[in-house]
Amino acid sequence: MRLAALLGPDLKVLENDPEVLREVFEDFHPEDVAELLDDLDDVAVGRLLAALPSEVGADLLERLSSDRQVDILENLETKDAVDLLAEMDPDDRVDFFTELEADEQKALLDELARTEPETATETQELLGWDPESAGGLMTPEYAALPPEMKAWEAIEALREMARKGEAETIYQVYVVGYGEKLLGVVSLRDLILTDQSHTLADIMTEKVVTVAPTDDQEEVARLAARYDLNVVPVVDEQHVLLGVVTIDDVVDVVIEEATEDAQLQGGVVPLEDGYFETGLLEFVWKRGAWLIVLFLGQLLTATVMERNQAVLQGTLELALFIPLIISSGGNAGSQSSTLIIRAMAVGDARPRDWFKVLGRELVIGLALGIVLGGMGFGRAYLAGETVDPAALGVAVGGSIVMIVTLSTIIGSLLPMLIERIGLDPAVSSTPFIASVVDVLGLLVYFSVATLAIEVLF
Amino acid sequence: MRLAALLGPDLKVLENDPEVLREVFEDFHPEDVAELLDDLDDVAVGRLLAALPSEVGADLLERLSSDRQVDILENLETKDAVDLLAEMDPDDRVDFFTELEADEQKALLDELARTEPETATETQELLGWDPESAGGLMTPEYAALPPEMKAWEAIEALREMARKGEAETIYQVYVVGYGEKLLGVVSLRDLILTDQSHTLADIMTEKVVTVAPTDDQEEVARLAARYDLNVVPVVDEQHVLLGVVTIDDVVDVVIEEATEDAQLQGGVVPLEDGYFETGLLEFVWKRGAWLIVLFLGQLLTATVMERNQAVLQGTLELALFIPLIISSGGNAGSQSSTLIIRAMAVGDARPRDWFKVLGRELVIGLALGIVLGGMGFGRAYLAGETVDPAALGVAVGGSIVMIVTLSTIIGSLLPMLIERIGLDPAVSSTPFIASVVDVLGLLVYFSVATLAIEVLF
Repeated sequence: MRLAALLGPDLKVLENDPEVLREVFEDFHPEDVAELLDDLDDVAVGRLLAALPSEVGADLLERLSSDRQVDILENLETKDAVDLLAEMDPDDRVDFFTELEADEQKALLDELARTEPETATETQELLGWDPESAGGLMTPEYAALPPEMKAWEAIEALREMARKGEAETIYQVYVVGYGEKLLGVVSLRDLILTDQSHTLADIMTEKVVTVAPTDDQEEVARLAARYDLNVVPVVDEQHVLLGVVTIDDVVDVVIEEATEDAQLQGGVVPLEDGYFETGLLEFVWKRGAWLIVLFLGQLLTATVMERNQAVLQGTLELALFIPLIISSGGNAGSQSSTLIIRAMAVGDARPRDWFKVLGRELVIGLALGIVLGGMGFGRAYLAGETVDPAALGVAVGGSIVMIVTLSTIIGSLLPMLIERIGLDPAVSSTPFIASVVDVLGLLVYFSVATLAIEVLF
Repeated sequence: MRLAALLGPDLKVLENDPEVLREVFEDFHPEDVAELLDDLDDVAVGRLLAALPSEVGADLLERLSSDRQVDILENLETKDAVDLLAEMDPDDRVDFFTELEADEQKALLDELARTEPETATETQELLGWDPESAGGLMTPEYAALPPEMKAWEAIEALREMARKGEAETIYQVYVVGYGEKLLGVVSLRDLILTDQSHTLADIMTEKVVTVAPTDDQEEVARLAARYDLNVVPVVDEQHVLLGVVTIDDVVDVVIEEATEDAQLQGGVVPLEDGYFETGLLEFVWKRGAWLIVLFLGQLLTATVMERNQAVLQGTLELALFIPLIISSGGNAGSQSSTLIIRAMAVGDARPRDWFKVLGRELVIGLALGIVLGGMGFGRAYLAGETVDPAALGVAVGGSIVMIVTLSTIIGSLLPMLIERIGLDPAVSSTPFIASVVDVLGLLVYFSVATLAIEVLF
């Protein structure tokens, strides 16, 4: 934004003059330059990127959303598009290809294979992994060297790799041998520090934290956070090094997963793009789908009410406290589900801890229920006119104690059950829990009320 | 966990034999070894840490929670405690001191100053910054060199620093001069790659993304994510380099902030520790505080109901749909508030975008309201017995259209307003929005119902 504001009316000049863009590129961070391109149309951006040196063009292209990349490249000559694709980082290139339809993917890969057969093969291989797995995040551009190499030779080799742009990071050197098997790792720091005649095998550490290519990206992020890793190597079952996931992608995963969880918990099907990039129709669909499901569930409340119409007719005061009672349950359930979902997301709790969780939530729920139930008793006592105030108080207070306790327990156990059966626990969203406990709250209320009014008083 | 399971009964041996712990330390990642210590009591852990070489002891101590660190060090001889503290990373040491009471802090700093006066001064300075700011995250152990230094000299200097353990990272070399002012940055990669007779000034890049020490940690994380930074330098107003924030701390911040937002949105005062580390009393307090506030707000629903008791008495069927109507509003509001809060957290939306948001949410809310309202009309039509079914249908359906639209708008604007007045928008939690729109839902319902039943039909 700042950069666009800085350029002001000159922004229009950009559109027709790649030279201006190149100058801006010299002076600003590519991320800021890429943001400028958001305000130009696809054809203009395509023309600009094609006119720039292809490594500069690719560097800018990589920073746009995958959707936008597709729109831009579709408007380019195939040759220009292939030139840009060939210069992109392998993981970004794969993200782009993932956005394409199968036939477009194949056609473009064939084009790429004509000029850059190795790049095409590499892309094809990476496309085989789930985009949300370690394999989908990894780049094959890492520094790998044999164990018998001496430190000074390794530094020379790294210089060569860096010069050719063959490695995304050279700060971790992977020591491989016996068929590309990962034997250990040496940091560039240790490499520089050591006696230069030592071999990599002498100085490498063999304690390497690795992931499998099929591991979920959340697992990669969890390990990187736990062990403070800047790079996570990906190995297959034979411990052959396939690629590395770099920390910048890990940070993106952490943010993306937190956004997805937040949206799920708010009862929204997660968005692909940012708030303002999402179309109104997509919003109506992604919010409407859940709202309709929840509404259908909530229709049960009307049925429960209908069945208990006679009770209400007898004591109309009971109706006054229905919103209060069901919302107390909803709020208590929302708290415990949020806590457990987040605890599972950061690895603090697992489904097998359910019994321990149950014990804690039972005590907490009961304590909270008694406090709120006491307040509810007081308020209801004041409202009793056609009915014994104490009976109404007990009906409301007792129901609150029960429903708060039950909701607390359901809110904590339901997400664990959902995780256990292999779904994302965040789907047991706050609105979902609220709907479940609303129906339950009414059932409890009518039972307790009947008991209190007809039997006890 | 795996490591603890692996050791099994041998875990007890650890407690009395630092030698065993040292052996485990050789073979496993320190993070896993530190986890083993969770199962031992404070006194035993203190004895073990004191018996290990102090850099090993400090490395393990750093990985425990700050609370635990305090409990452990309080049980140690002052000399042993000071030895461990002196070996900790500066940012971890500061986190520890932050946990202490003012007088304990002073006493321990004085002790530290006796043997390590420089460390004590540095700690004192770092303690001056808000723990949740860039200053609170930064470490003063970075590599800084003068601009006239040649590449080969710089590499020699880095070797020396790394050997002395003076820099937490040497992969970014900060070029400083004219009174420690940050002039530019050179990556170790470029340093190795370049002609070794070039000076740092020749090869450094001057486009450095920096933060101020008072910047919020969320801002640091946002910049690191945006620009793919592994280290973020912190400078004062004169552009003097004060310290650097490393990516491992950035990842922790991102996770911590996401957890805090998730808990706030679930209506819980954010926890300091993990789910199982938080005591039951703290839970009751942190959940109860919000539940009571929400309950007090929800008491308004009983008042609104009381005022409209006559309407209910006239047409009891109206009561049947109260839970359905208020929950529809709550769910719609929950969706829009979640989306906006997250959009603001990741920098997609700002309070000044409120008008654009209002326009979008109005359209989306109306579309969703019409769909749900149609369903509500159908269900209510079937329930009309003492009243014209069409009138009941219009009362319920019309109210749903209105309340869903209103809730969608309130859910999106309220968090922006809260951010605008400088509070964390996540406090406008799902339960909070639900409480606001519950009351509103009842008011709308009774007005629409009166109109539909008495005037229209």
